[in-house]
Order: sequence, then C-alpha cells, then structure tokens
Amino acid sequence: MDRTIAENGIKMLITGTFIDEISHDIPHQNWGPTEWAQDFKYMKAAGIDTVIVIRCGYRKFITYPSPYLTKTFGCYEPPLDLIDLFLTLAEQHDMTLYFGLYDSGIYWDTGNLQQEIDANTFVIEEVWKKYGHRKAFKGWYLSTEISRKTKGAIEAFHGMGSMCKSISNDLPVFISPWIDGKKAVLAASNNLNKQDAVSLKEHEAEWEEIFAGIQGAVDAVAFQDGQIDYHELADFFTINKKLADKYALQCWTNAESFDRDMPIKFLPIKFEKLKLKLEAAKKAGYDKAITFEFSHFMSPQSAYIQAHHLYNRYLEYKNNY
Amino acid sequence: MDRTIAENGIKMLITGTFIDEISHDIPHQNWGPTEWAQDFKYMKAAGIDTVIVIRCGYRKFITYPSPYLTKTFGCYEPPLDLIDLFLTLAEQHDMTLYFGLYDSGIYWDTGNLQQEIDANTFVIEEVWKKYGHRKAFKGWYLSTEISRKTKGAIEAFHGMGSMCKSISNDLPVFISPWIDGKKAVLAASNNLNKQDAVSLKEHEAEWEEIFAGIQGAVDAVAFQDGQIDYHELADFFTINKKLADKYALQCWTNAESFDRDMPIKFLPIKFEKLKLKLEAAKKAGYDKAITFEFSHFMSPQSAYIQAHHLYNRYLEYKNNY
Amino acid sequence: MDRTIAENGIKMLITGTFIDEISHDIPHQNWGPTEWAQDFKYMKAAGIDTVIVIRCGYRKFITYPSPYLTKTFGCYEPPLDLIDLFLTLAEQHDMTLYFGLYDSGIYWDTGNLQQEIDANTFVIEEVWKKYGHRKAFKGWYLSTEISRKTKGAIEAFHGMGSMCKSISNDLPVFISPWIDGKKAVLAASNNLNKQDAVSLKEHEAEWEEIFAGIQGAVDAVAFQDGQIDYHELADFFTINKKLADKYALQCWTNAESFDRDMPIKFLPIKFEKLKLKLEAAKKAGYDKAITFEFSHFMSPQSAYIQAHHLYNRYLEYKNNY
Repeated sequence: MDRTIAENGIKMLITGTFIDEISHDIPHQNWGPTEWAQDFKYMKAAGIDTVIVIRCGYRKFITYPSPYLTKTFGCYEPPLDLIDLFLTLAEQHDMTLYFGLYDSGIYWDTGNLQQEIDANTFVIEEVWKKYGHRKAFKGWYLSTEISRKTKGAIEAFHGMGSMCKSISNDLPVFISPWIDGKKAVLAASNNLNKQDAVSLKEHEAEWEEIFAGIQGAVDAVAFQDGQIDYHELADFFTINKKLADKYALQCWTNAESFDRDMPIKFLPIKFEKLKLKLEAAKKAGYDKAITFEFSHFMSPQSAYIQAHHLYNRYLEYKNNY
Repeated sequence: MDRTIAENGIKMLITGTFIDEISHDIPHQNWGPTEWAQDFKYMKAAGIDTVIVIRCGYRKFITYPSPYLTKTFGCYEPPLDLIDLFLTLAEQHDMTLYFGLYDSGIYWDTGNLQQEIDANTFVIEEVWKKYGHRKAFKGWYLSTEISRKTKGAIEAFHGMGSMCKSISNDLPVFISPWIDGKKAVLAASNNLNKQDAVSLKEHEAEWEEIFAGIQGAVDAVAFQDGQIDYHELADFFTINKKLADKYALQCWTNAESFDRDMPIKFLPIKFEKLKLKLEAAKKAGYDKAITFEFSHFMSPQSAYIQAHHLYNRYLEYKNNY
Repeated sequence: MDRTIAENGIKMLITGTFIDEISHDIPHQNWGPTEWAQDFKYMKAAGIDTVIVIRCGYRKFITYPSPYLTKTFGCYEPPLDLIDLFLTLAEQHDMTLYFGLYDSGIYWDTGNLQQEIDANTFVIEEVWKKYGHRKAFKGWYLSTEISRKTKGAIEAFHGMGSMCKSISNDLPVFISPWIDGKKAVLAASNNLNKQDAVSLKEHEAEWEEIFAGIQGAVDAVAFQDGQIDYHELADFFTINKKLADKYALQCWTNAESFDRDMPIKFLPIKFEKLKLKLEAAKKAGYDKAITFEFSHFMSPQSAYIQAHHLYNRYLEYKNNY
C-alpha cells in the first residue's frame, strides 16, 4: 500500500474513492462504459490513485457474472461485467483497485454474520480465479459495515480477511466501520441525530478489543467520518490513530462527501465541512484519505450539480490554497 | 386499442406514458409549451404512441378551464389549458391520448368514493363536450388509485367506466391499481417496506372479485409494478394475466421508472431494475407496457440528470440489444 | 425602505430574496465568488433590489471572520468572508442588503432565547464596526424564526431590534415569522401536514399581542407564506395586513419558492402555486414581496433544474402577462 498523503501543511488530500455501483441508498446514475471512462479521467485529475468497489453484490444484484451467486442466491445476471470495466479503467490510469466482498443482506435482516462468511468463502475463490491476475487488482475490502455493537464482527473480519490474504499472496485488506456517534441514524430514518451516541471512552475500549482481534487479517482501517459532529473530530481521530498504531494498522479516513445534516438523504456536502474533516485527519496523522464517494458527490458529471461545484472547490483547495 | 408490443424476443418495450402535470408527490418541473413540445419529440423517438393524462385535476388544481370544477370545488383557473396542449402535441405525433378523471381528494380524506363518482359524472360530460371531438382523444383513464382493500372500488370503477364508455361511443377505459406488496408504503413515509404484504393467494382471490365486477366497464388493467420485489414479479404477473384473460381485459404493465428502494422519494430507477420488470411482463404475455412516467424519470430534459442516462440506456436496449 | 411593489394590476413582483449560505435544511451548492457574481446578475434581471443574509452564523458555521464568535462559540473560520462578498455584489448592482443576526442553536435546543439576545449584543457591535460603513448595508434581519407559541419572543425581538436600530442610526429592521398553519411541520418530519393548525381568530389575537409588543423596534414583518393552504391565503393575509397597519409595520410577504407539498424536502415550487401566493399578497395590499430563496429555487444556475424553468416562467409572468 502506497502512502499517498499530501505532506504539505495542513491539507489532507483525497487519493481514493469508493465506487458505489450496487448501492444501498444512493440512487443510480445509469451510467454506461462511456460515462465511467470519463469519470476515471475526472478522478485522475483530482489526484485519485485508488478505487474501491464497495461491494461486488448486494442481495440479488451483482457486478460480475457469477455462477456461484446466481446459483446460490438467485442473483440476476448483470447487464455488464462492471469488475472487468473498472479494472480496465484503473489499469489505463495506473490506479489500484480494491475489491469489495459480497453482501447477501442476510446479516442486515437477521443479525447473523455466519452466512456472510460462508458466501464470501466461495466468492473470494471465484473472484480471485477470474480477476486475480489483473494488474490493478491490488487489495480487498471487507464490505460488511459494522460498528462497536456488531456481534461476531471480530470473527467475521478475521475470517474473511485471512481468506483474502491467504489466496492472494497477502494482498492488503481494509475495512471502513462507522463510529456510533450522534449522526449514526439509518438513511431511511427521518431523524438526523440520536441521543445515545457513544462516548470517547467506550469508543476506545470497544475498538481496542476489535483491533486486537483482527490484527494480522486486516491492514488498514478507514473509519467513516460523518457520524460525529465537527468539533468531535479531533478527539475521535486521535484515539483512532493511537489504536491503529498500537495494532499496526494503517489509519485512513473515509471522508464522506455527502451531507448528513440535511433532510434530503443524501446530496453533496458543503465544501467547508469536507475541508474540516480532512484537516482533522491530517492533524491526527492519518495515513490516507478516501471518500464515499466521488462519482455521485464530487464528479463534474454527477447528476447532482452541487457535486460539480464541489469538484471545483476541492481542486482549488488542492492546487492553490 | 392497438397492441403495440415488441414481439421480438424477451424485450417488452414501453409504448405509453403517464403525464403527471397535476401531481400528488412528484415535484413540478415548471415546463411551458416549448418544453412540452420538445418532450413529445423525445417520447416519439423512444417509441411512445400513447400518453395518459394522469388526472385532469386534483383537489383545487386543474388542467383545463372548468366552469364545473371551479364552481363546485373552488378550483383555481389554470394558467394554461394543458388538455388542449397535450391533445395538440399528441395529434402532431400521431399519438393516442387517454384522459384521466378528476380526483377531488375527498376519497383520500374520508374513504368515501361516492363523491368521486358524483363529481366525475359532470366532469366526463364537460370534458367530452369540450375535447371529445379531438382526433387524439381515444380513451379514458379512471384515475382513482385503488388496491384490494378499497371499499366500493368495484361500484366506482363500474360506474365511472360505464359513463365514459356510454358518452363516447365505447372508447376504451383503463385502470392502474397497485399490488398491496411489501413496498406499498406511502410516499411520505420514511419506510421502504411493510410487514403485512399481500399473499399471492389473497391477491388472486381479491382481484378475481374486482375483475368480475368491473367487466364490461373497463377494457384494460395496468398494474403498477413497483410494490413487489423483483423476484416476485413472475408469480404476480402470471396471476394478473390469467385473471385478465378470464375476464377479457387487456393486461398492461405500468412499469414504474422511478426507484422505490431509495431514501429520496423519488428519483429515476436503475435501468437494470426497469429491464427486469419489463422482461417479466413480456414473459407473462402482457399486452402493452406504459410507464409512470417519462417526463420526470426518463426524459433527456428531465430535471433529474439520472433520467438522461436512463433514456440512453433504454434506447440502447430498445435499438441494439 | 423603498416600496418597490409592482402596482400594475393583480401582479405582485418579487423584489427581494434571502441568501441562505448558512443553512438549516437546504443542501449547499458549493458556489464560489464567480457563481455568486453570476447569481446577482440573474437576481437583478429578475427585478430583485434587496438581498437578505438569512443569518450571519448558525451554531459553529459563520459567514465572516468573527473574533467574538470564534472565541465564544468555537466557530470555525470561514473559508471566505461572505458578508464582504455579498456587500460588494450588492453595491455593484445598487441593491440593499439586510444583515441577519447570529443563531447559536441554543434556542432550538433549549427553548431559551436569552442567549440569542446576549450573543447578538456582541455580534451587532462587531458587525456594525466591520461593515456598518458599507454602502449596501441598509438594514437588519432578526433571524430568530418564531411563531405564536415562542416564549419570550416579544422581549427578544424588541431587545434585538432596538439594539440594531440604536447602533445604526435607526436602520430598518424586519422579521419573518411563520404562521402556525397545517403545513407547519419540521423539515426533518416525514409528514406534510398536522392536525392542530391555528385558527384565524387565534392567529389574530396572538399576533396582535406580538405586534403591540415589538412596535418601535421592528419596521416590517414578512410572514412566511407556505404553512397555510392556498385557499386560506386571503383570510390570513387580510388579518396580517390589518394588524400591520394598526401597529405601523410594513407588511411584506415571504413568498416561499420551494414546495412544501412534496415528499422531497425541498425542491422548487410549481409556478402556479407561487403565482397564487403572490397575487393573494397583492390583493391584501401587501407592501413588498421577498422570497426564500432565489439561488436554490429560482436561479438559472441552481443545482435544481426545476428552478431554471421557474425562473423562465416567473420572468414571462413579470414581463408579458
């Protein structure tokens, strides 16, 4: 894993983005290969060297033709092999692609992580056989989004991370959990905040246990940065970095480029907020910044025009500040 | 009623669209005659030969200058005669226009359908006198959206359908009810699903009763296709077609081009989902596909940019697949 | 305060707009100085002569570099001095700028208005020292949004209004309260209506008390026009004007250009609705129409494309009707 942090001054630059083509909650843009080719150009121009396929499938919708998933979960044949497309575009732009595992939805419905592990045992093998030789395939992303209260998270992450590393000659693995902060509410909820946010002390104790348990099977942790308030960033980020260092994990930030403070869930974030979050990560000594995600919320061709301006504001910041 | 189904292979092509100018829940685009003229060109290029005015009025907002509705319901004088506009544009493009009846809102507020029947007795007469001679005026749409539990639905549909047919020398009449499936939640609800979805067996029994009761007064039924899950389409569509055949109704699909699975209610659907739904209708032997609706969710000039890409994806599918 | 009402016929034209750069609930457009310069040109072309900065700060986000707010409330240094920018643009276009006071958020959290008064005592002084000499700085806006049930509203408005007037040689002050009507629901609520709307009689009695109490400290009142139904406009507006006249207040309308009737909160309003509201204000003899707000909901460069068409519809109305 390259360290691609902007070292100059207070700025932390975004060098990676999720690709959210099988989405939980962000409406689809209906792009074809032409639009994706253009978007990778925009990403490159913004300094992005890493793309992460957020999940290779969710319930019955999948990104690549998978005999296993079609047979076992009744998944629909995708109109296009998106994994091949994204690998090809990443290779054209000399980017790294992280591959996100399958999310069956069973965990969301039942709280049981075992079936996610079982399914991904087969998916990892199938995918590695199909795409493991590709130049841009340089890592894995454990797509299960957990937080402190997720039962069985340590076993799941340790198990899936180990499988990924073992089949791929130790390619790096990362996770992107959420902080159980005041804005940690469901997208479908009409609330913006909740009362029972985690305390700093609980956060530290619980994640220390998780980090200890996943050591060796996971290389980097990219906490989502949107569930806490802006003035809480410094404290939480300090703890995250301290824990990551202790357990030899790289500490990335998942700088959310959508706005959690608004009734429309979700539109692009105000640039000032993104800047606050990135600079807090820099100050805490984080290793890399990725974002969820470029194509809806920061791209000059996004369906959300606010994103076009966010791209310009971000590039001004990156280049001239 | 022409049958305009694409007969080639697995594809079912959309040949009709609602026009949602007096909307319950879709924000207005503020188009004038110029934008509408352009949109009919886009529709024509996409293979649409049928437009359906979803309702000629809703509560106090109406589409045409109506002495009756203004006097009786205090409706506002419309800035433009939209019925004349849409008829003119339909005539220019050799399209069929179905006229949607008035929705007073009283049924939504009180559960009482009698006033919808009473009001439309006058509306049908007024409208037929005003626009019945127009070349494109070729059918009626009973705008009351019902489902299985709607009390008095049979009497209302039979009554209004008979009035329409009798005044217009038997012009065709259609309805577009919803399946009471897991996604049948109110637009204003923050939920995406509900627990008490109808079973296949209940659906069949209840709609058999309704179809039997409306026979002769209704010519086609276009179930909305968005309230059930994608893997349920085959079963429900098979029943719908079987029942429609039994009661000599044409069986259309109302292929919703907006996405019911997302927290923003509503933006354009992912093309892959629309394709799954259309092909399920084709497989079940449906007679025609219409959509709710082209101008917001599929038009190259929609305020939702996702729609521009959906148009391109759909045209690629239509022309080249 | 100029009276800039269109006197011709039934039309009431919009001559002022809020600028909502520190927003509660409208996602940010990420505009820089270039986009703002363009937007003021569009405003001017639409007949706008007055801009109102809705609030100079909200919680920790502020519009201008404020030693006081940074020290006292831990506010973030703004990337840009927006007050200077808006004053400069207003001066270029010969417009009047009203300055909106600070909203600490404490009142929203606790119901206590005292801290809003205390904070603004310092803000008013700081701002007047910094910007009071600017040519376009011609008035104050008390940004606390109240309604009839707000405890302590009279004291707060009287106190803050008096401070503004006293430091600035009696520059005009206005407020923009909301009518506690059926659509007065929180933006984050999934409801569109509520049951316990205020009656006309209660509205009159309660606002008579408030107007009596703020007399002398406030010059104009611009009720928000979106919380009541369209057919209620005439009655409420008549009362508002009668009360305003009685207590020597100018009576403005805050014509909301977003749509409160739709599940997406909020997108641009249907022009027909805006027209109904403006003409009701004209009929009631209102003095001026402002809108919340031009840049998101009526601008030809808004991120909401519906706004581009609303601009065209409005200009057609303004120029040719």
